[in-house]
Amino acid sequence: MTTVRENDFSVVLINTFFVKPGKTDELLQVLIKATDDVMRHQPGFISANLHISLDKTRVANYAQWRSKEDFERMQENPDVKPHMKLAAELAERFDPMLYTVAHVDNRANV
Amino acid sequence: MTTVRENDFSVVLINTFFVKPGKTDELLQVLIKATDDVMRHQPGFISANLHISLDKTRVANYAQWRSKEDFERMQENPDVKPHMKLAAELAERFDPMLYTVAHVDNRANV
Repeated sequence: MTTVRENDFSVVLINTFFVKPGKTDELLQVLIKATDDVMRHQPGFISANLHISLDKTRVANYAQWRSKEDFERMQENPDVKPHMKLAAELAERFDPMLYTVAHVDNRANV
Repeated sequence: MTTVRENDFSVVLINTFFVKPGKTDELLQVLIKATDDVMRHQPGFISANLHISLDKTRVANYAQWRSKEDFERMQENPDVKPHMKLAAELAERFDPMLYTVAHVDNRANV
């Protein structure tokens, strides 16, 4: 289970993969393996949450990192690059962006 | 606090707003007001989680809905449309997509 909170000082990567036709499940498996084998062992990793669009054209990773610096250090890790290359090959393009959580609103306010 | 779980049968809207220069904070306030005034009172609303990119060029809403049908019903609600028109006017473009959660991985596996 992942939790999202306001003002917790972590950063969020939303990386949207525009998937090559028919490659959605394969890309998902590549990203799961990348997370299990490498990402989750990097300093500052909090969570990776992988999503498939209902129309199967996109895979989105909503990933939480302790800081921008931890995220950037991960990207320079040579163990990470082969996984990201494999993922990139299954997508027409991908669009990563770092965010902070600005506001959280729940129906139940729990 | 928002929680993200695998296989909970809800849907996730990720709506990325590519903000007009200097309009980031204004757009955020419009989306907060839309959520508070209208969205959170619609059947099937679970949460809205608003993000600002570190470079201030984008606002992303990660919103959970009970079902695709609830989300679509909300879009047809006449109370919703003025809020969405206001948000759209502050963005160069916006890119909404519905997803399901396919995989969740946490460092601590809590």
